[in-house]
Amino acid sequence: MHRSMIKRSRKTGLPPGSLVHIGLERAEETRIAVLDYDAEHVEEREIRAVDELAPYIGKPSVTWIDVVGIHEPKVIEQIGCQFQIHPLLMEDIMNTTQRPKIDDLGKYICLILKLITFDETVMELRIEQLSLVFSDDVVLTFQESESGVFKPLRDRIRNSLGRIRKMGTDYLAYSLMDAVIDHYFVVMEKMGEKIDILENDVVMNPQREILRSVQQLRDEILLVRRSVWPLREIISLLERAESPLIDKTSSLYFRDIYEHTIQVMDTVDTYRDILSGMFDIYLSSISNRLNEVMKVLTIIATIFMPLTFLAGVYGMNFQNMPELKWQYGYFMIWGVMILIAVAMLVYFRKRRWI
Amino acid sequence: MHRSMIKRSRKTGLPPGSLVHIGLERAEETRIAVLDYDAEHVEEREIRAVDELAPYIGKPSVTWIDVVGIHEPKVIEQIGCQFQIHPLLMEDIMNTTQRPKIDDLGKYICLILKLITFDETVMELRIEQLSLVFSDDVVLTFQESESGVFKPLRDRIRNSLGRIRKMGTDYLAYSLMDAVIDHYFVVMEKMGEKIDILENDVVMNPQREILRSVQQLRDEILLVRRSVWPLREIISLLERAESPLIDKTSSLYFRDIYEHTIQVMDTVDTYRDILSGMFDIYLSSISNRLNEVMKVLTIIATIFMPLTFLAGVYGMNFQNMPELKWQYGYFMIWGVMILIAVAMLVYFRKRRWI
Amino acid sequence: MHRSMIKRSRKTGLPPGSLVHIGLERAEETRIAVLDYDAEHVEEREIRAVDELAPYIGKPSVTWIDVVGIHEPKVIEQIGCQFQIHPLLMEDIMNTTQRPKIDDLGKYICLILKLITFDETVMELRIEQLSLVFSDDVVLTFQESESGVFKPLRDRIRNSLGRIRKMGTDYLAYSLMDAVIDHYFVVMEKMGEKIDILENDVVMNPQREILRSVQQLRDEILLVRRSVWPLREIISLLERAESPLIDKTSSLYFRDIYEHTIQVMDTVDTYRDILSGMFDIYLSSISNRLNEVMKVLTIIATIFMPLTFLAGVYGMNFQNMPELKWQYGYFMIWGVMILIAVAMLVYFRKRRWI
Amino acid sequence: MHRSMIKRSRKTGLPPGSLVHIGLERAEETRIAVLDYDAEHVEEREIRAVDELAPYIGKPSVTWIDVVGIHEPKVIEQIGCQFQIHPLLMEDIMNTTQRPKIDDLGKYICLILKLITFDETVMELRIEQLSLVFSDDVVLTFQESESGVFKPLRDRIRNSLGRIRKMGTDYLAYSLMDAVIDHYFVVMEKMGEKIDILENDVVMNPQREILRSVQQLRDEILLVRRSVWPLREIISLLERAESPLIDKTSSLYFRDIYEHTIQVMDTVDTYRDILSGMFDIYLSSISNRLNEVMKVLTIIATIFMPLTFLAGVYGMNFQNMPELKWQYGYFMIWGVMILIAVAMLVYFRKRRWI
Amino acid sequence: MHRSMIKRSRKTGLPPGSLVHIGLERAEETRIAVLDYDAEHVEEREIRAVDELAPYIGKPSVTWIDVVGIHEPKVIEQIGCQFQIHPLLMEDIMNTTQRPKIDDLGKYICLILKLITFDETVMELRIEQLSLVFSDDVVLTFQESESGVFKPLRDRIRNSLGRIRKMGTDYLAYSLMDAVIDHYFVVMEKMGEKIDILENDVVMNPQREILRSVQQLRDEILLVRRSVWPLREIISLLERAESPLIDKTSSLYFRDIYEHTIQVMDTVDTYRDILSGMFDIYLSSISNRLNEVMKVLTIIATIFMPLTFLAGVYGMNFQNMPELKWQYGYFMIWGVMILIAVAMLVYFRKRRWI
Repeated sequence: MHRSMIKRSRKTGLPPGSLVHIGLERAEETRIAVLDYDAEHVEEREIRAVDELAPYIGKPSVTWIDVVGIHEPKVIEQIGCQFQIHPLLMEDIMNTTQRPKIDDLGKYICLILKLITFDETVMELRIEQLSLVFSDDVVLTFQESESGVFKPLRDRIRNSLGRIRKMGTDYLAYSLMDAVIDHYFVVMEKMGEKIDILENDVVMNPQREILRSVQQLRDEILLVRRSVWPLREIISLLERAESPLIDKTSSLYFRDIYEHTIQVMDTVDTYRDILSGMFDIYLSSISNRLNEVMKVLTIIATIFMPLTFLAGVYGMNFQNMPELKWQYGYFMIWGVMILIAVAMLVYFRKRRWI
Repeated sequence: MHRSMIKRSRKTGLPPGSLVHIGLERAEETRIAVLDYDAEHVEEREIRAVDELAPYIGKPSVTWIDVVGIHEPKVIEQIGCQFQIHPLLMEDIMNTTQRPKIDDLGKYICLILKLITFDETVMELRIEQLSLVFSDDVVLTFQESESGVFKPLRDRIRNSLGRIRKMGTDYLAYSLMDAVIDHYFVVMEKMGEKIDILENDVVMNPQREILRSVQQLRDEILLVRRSVWPLREIISLLERAESPLIDKTSSLYFRDIYEHTIQVMDTVDTYRDILSGMFDIYLSSISNRLNEVMKVLTIIATIFMPLTFLAGVYGMNFQNMPELKWQYGYFMIWGVMILIAVAMLVYFRKRRWI
Repeated sequence: MHRSMIKRSRKTGLPPGSLVHIGLERAEETRIAVLDYDAEHVEEREIRAVDELAPYIGKPSVTWIDVVGIHEPKVIEQIGCQFQIHPLLMEDIMNTTQRPKIDDLGKYICLILKLITFDETVMELRIEQLSLVFSDDVVLTFQESESGVFKPLRDRIRNSLGRIRKMGTDYLAYSLMDAVIDHYFVVMEKMGEKIDILENDVVMNPQREILRSVQQLRDEILLVRRSVWPLREIISLLERAESPLIDKTSSLYFRDIYEHTIQVMDTVDTYRDILSGMFDIYLSSISNRLNEVMKVLTIIATIFMPLTFLAGVYGMNFQNMPELKWQYGYFMIWGVMILIAVAMLVYFRKRRWI
Repeated sequence: MHRSMIKRSRKTGLPPGSLVHIGLERAEETRIAVLDYDAEHVEEREIRAVDELAPYIGKPSVTWIDVVGIHEPKVIEQIGCQFQIHPLLMEDIMNTTQRPKIDDLGKYICLILKLITFDETVMELRIEQLSLVFSDDVVLTFQESESGVFKPLRDRIRNSLGRIRKMGTDYLAYSLMDAVIDHYFVVMEKMGEKIDILENDVVMNPQREILRSVQQLRDEILLVRRSVWPLREIISLLERAESPLIDKTSSLYFRDIYEHTIQVMDTVDTYRDILSGMFDIYLSSISNRLNEVMKVLTIIATIFMPLTFLAGVYGMNFQNMPELKWQYGYFMIWGVMILIAVAMLVYFRKRRWI
Repeated sequence: MHRSMIKRSRKTGLPPGSLVHIGLERAEETRIAVLDYDAEHVEEREIRAVDELAPYIGKPSVTWIDVVGIHEPKVIEQIGCQFQIHPLLMEDIMNTTQRPKIDDLGKYICLILKLITFDETVMELRIEQLSLVFSDDVVLTFQESESGVFKPLRDRIRNSLGRIRKMGTDYLAYSLMDAVIDHYFVVMEKMGEKIDILENDVVMNPQREILRSVQQLRDEILLVRRSVWPLREIISLLERAESPLIDKTSSLYFRDIYEHTIQVMDTVDTYRDILSGMFDIYLSSISNRLNEVMKVLTIIATIFMPLTFLAGVYGMNFQNMPELKWQYGYFMIWGVMILIAVAMLVYFRKRRWI
């Protein structure tokens, strides 16, 4: 259940900078896709060996190297060497329990983000790690598995839509982050739909299972929160554009996704409020039900107890019970009983119990 | 129910700066009203084509261009081009899920606010977006639909009431914001009336529907809160008057609406306190009712169970039951029964159950 | 109930700086009392027309002009003109829903405070607005109605008690604020007495009305909180003494009332804690009562149901029921019944139900 | 109950700096003990008249003047004059409702602390005020009554234990504060013992009185919190050692008691968590009990109601009831009844109710 | 239960800097292990007397002196003298109730951390204190007892794995902290497993004991929180590398463990959320159960009360009761009774009670 609880303990005792994959086991091989472009040309390649990346280093065009699969320490290590990335960062990139963060190392900036998608088949969130390293001519992305999130962006580069082909690596980094954050909105909408369904159920049909669903949704939303919250700080750092890697004019773009992040946080907080409100409604509807059950019991008992008592009285075997000998005693007692019952019903009606 | 959940996802994958309307579908055409004034003259026009706006650019008088309807990307785009507004801002203007914010771009300042009105016909809040862009000679406002909020302001300009005709665009911007925030008070008063009614009901007649109303009101108040909260920061930025567009002497005006915003927030927080207090009262009144129901049951059962038992005893068929043959046995047993009943009633009286 | 909900909406649409009285309607005429003093002399006058104030402007002695009644826009406007106070401030002075605030306009400082008194006749709080404007020679106070709060201060000036006659307007302003804040302590003590009474009741006699009282007291304390909270910021601004109107040596005095404000806030927060603790006790005492009611029911039912069943058995009409013919069958069954009842009672005793 | 509610209102209306004792009435006379020491000598005296203090002013040795009893305005005023302490501070020293605070007046520093002791005889906290004024050669302490807290310190000075005899007034002030804060730990341990006892009771024997004890303990802990919380700020001011009265090397000592204060706050917060956890357990154990009571009732009713019904059926007087004439009808019906009872018991066993 | 409540009070009244062991009593002797290394050589020794440490002072190689057992004041005092550590720090090192903290004394830095391990045998947390003092050539560690936490680090030094042999004392200090923090993850995983088990139980089998386990786990997690929380501040101080003892290049390493600390805090907060969610589920499942119990009672009562009444009616002894004489009266009454029972069952089915 607690996805964030992927065992991290196997790293205990290893020296810092040891590359160990912490995350879901995967069988697929690591795939490396290169997309090299400037205003005039685009080149797309699938890479087999890490050495093939060498020619792209120092090339003035923007090179986007997309690494899908981070479970092979050897491949990741080679890439790290190739681009001279600090071993501690490479370690974080392979550790999917890493919190979103930013590290500015002068020559390159490393970002770790969470890619949240909604898996329609199992109706569950899938949170994967996306690491993004960019220098002034290369953008490296490390994904856990193939997600369709960057397809539209790739198309935009291929077809030179928007201004992306004219811009540098900072704009590509921004576009990647924008794609990631846009997907948070998709996820929040799915969540919203789930909440709408639950909200209806909790009033109409407050079963115990609903509570579990509420709890689970709450946990999921907390996961999203934890993925989004650190982004605020990260992006506001980028917005300030203190690194030479980030152009001053990009500031407005980063400010834009900063606003989006705040908006996701707002929605997350609204959902949390709604869900805890639901819990209150659930509790009070249980109490309401108990009240109703008790009213039925009380009404029945209050009507039949006096009647049964009366019947019992005339079932006594005293020799001298004058009423028993009256001609219409039996019918009179029926009359009295009906009177009592009606009086009780009127009383309950008055108290609005029925 | 969750108005803030207007589908935003159709923007996913588009390049930044793409103009897509995110909001309620609307059929009406976009209307553009121009109001051009300085201390001596006023001119009012309804515009057909966006090019007609050209003459107002660079004119020393204050020009207020009021765009009603933001669902036609083409019109909005033309306006954006005309006044050289950054595409990212135009995108935000068309996205009604945008959070209130301020962007100072040097030549102009862009404000996004929420216009909250109370729709008397459906007794509900209507939250619409108001975008406000002002340079040193033009104020652009973008509204989702025609609201009467700015009518009094328009009248003041026409009739040169107050100092508005002598002031610049910053004062007009302030006056517009003031009108918007004044409406928050109107809305809060309506809310207050709703709360007063509910508060009475929750004590007199704690039905389950009340809980829903409380919940709904709580959601509405949260919506207002989310619209007002970011205003504090926005206005305090304006108050500091660091932009050349804002005159130092306007500072006191912005400080004034800053105080109003704080006051709205105070009221919002009071209402939230009152509403959650109501929920507590509701819960405790359910418990109280259960107590009352149970008391009725217990009183009835406690009186009639011993009596029924006694009647049962003298309904037994033992051959040797001396009491049955006593002359006044039957009457004596009635006496005993009445005694028991009275004793019980006295006991309950003492415990203050009846 | 919600005093803070005095209709503010009639101001909607008016230009800023319009003087409209927002507050309780009052019939009395506005009264203006002047107290002019320096170390050697004191002069006290009741003023009829606002022009009579003119001679006091520019006079080196300290002039305290106390305006009682702020519901006559004309009078207030004249005073504002006389002393050249900004129209926005005059507007705030007439609006009793205004939050406490400070405005430093260089030549004068404007303070808006809340005067809280406890009305013994209706046992309720009365929150009124006190506006305080002071320049280097004049102190203006605007009260909603005559309160006795400043009487001791006036006496001290008349009789030259303490150092007040030797000090300037800043010390008078401080003394006025000190008088206001001292009254908060009086109010808090009254609240404390109310709480003590309630605290006793909630344990001894948890009626539903108590909950309402608790709720009401909570609302009242929130009102006080809202009046006191902004004071902290206001006074710490005065303490820093950045205005030429405030003498550096006054700093310690303002620090002193700052401490008092913090202390009032502490008491307010203690009371809130106590009141919400009370609600918890109330809820649990309802549950306790239900438990008791249910125990009585269960004890009665558990004793009499088996007995009634037994009596029913020997009331059956089977022809062949040997026990019925036993000589002492009837007495034996009584024995058995008493045995059962005693056994039950022993069982309940053991479980500590009785 | 609410110690902090000692009537403060009698100060209302008095000029600032008026010496009025706010606190518990006391009968004892004020006692003044002088302890004068430097590295070589120690002198101890009990003082009768305030003038006897004069020779100690300006003497290079450290003089500790311990005033026990602050309820005699005259004595306190004389001391204030003797050492030229600001009247506002003298006023605070006499007001035991004063919050802990620090005032740096250049020539001397004034600290107001709370001395918390645990009175074993009544098992209650006793919170008294300790005021500490130190210049470069004199340390004045004002206590409400004689507490044993400073005895060990006095012994250390007499016997020249540790470095105290070689240090200045700042170290003595630190030592006094250290003694006060060390006593907080003693008090917290007593609290901890109380909590342990309650924690056991709340599970074993959840009586209503426990709730009161929990509530009371919560109040007491809040009192401690309020006394300790402001200390953090006070001590961190001393630690920064910006006053010439405090030697730079003392910084580490003040840092040490700062850490202690944080630790007391930690314990206070842990206790609050534990106490509110207890309340939850109490509530849920009430619910559990209700459940148990209801189970007993339901089991009894469910077993005996069908049996009583059956007995009732064969107690009917229809002329044609074949079963009544069967030879073993009576025994068969007993069989049926026992069967029903056993079936019910098995059912309840299965549901784990018994 | 409250481990943090080890009696601290025996220090009350002692002069600051007095070495008193505050912690669990231990019988073992203090052991001192020395590990001296540089890039070329390693030397390992067990030390008997503290004087044997003298040669390592001033030696350019890195010397790690590991002191296991801090309960012998004499030994600890000798070490303090040997390395000229401030008595106040030595006092803190011996006091296991000390909060995590950092003290930078110029020539050396002193860190106090908490070493948390999970004792598998008793399934409980064990929190011990680890004090770490490092100068430019010596690292001193003080542990309460032998824990295996540093074994892997020792092996890395012996076998020159990673870069540790080439680095200075700051890197050793970092490696020690890294080992400590890595163990927090192990502990959090154990906690996570406990929570998973509880989470299952609370739904399947909500016994009262579960509540205690939840409470206990909550307390344990609070203990971890209190140990980890101050680390953030401590490590961020180290990261800023303002001390000459810390190399600028180490900054990234400290930043790395800073991230880990944040991640532990995140997990702690998630667990707290989950645990309080569990409490809510527990409460609501108690209410649910009560509902079920009451339904059973109500169903039984509602079916049998009318039937018993009917049987009672025909058990009356009136002389004139026509039905009694009907040929099939008895069978008809059975029919009526079965009809009533079926009708009731249908009614309950409809209300979804059965």
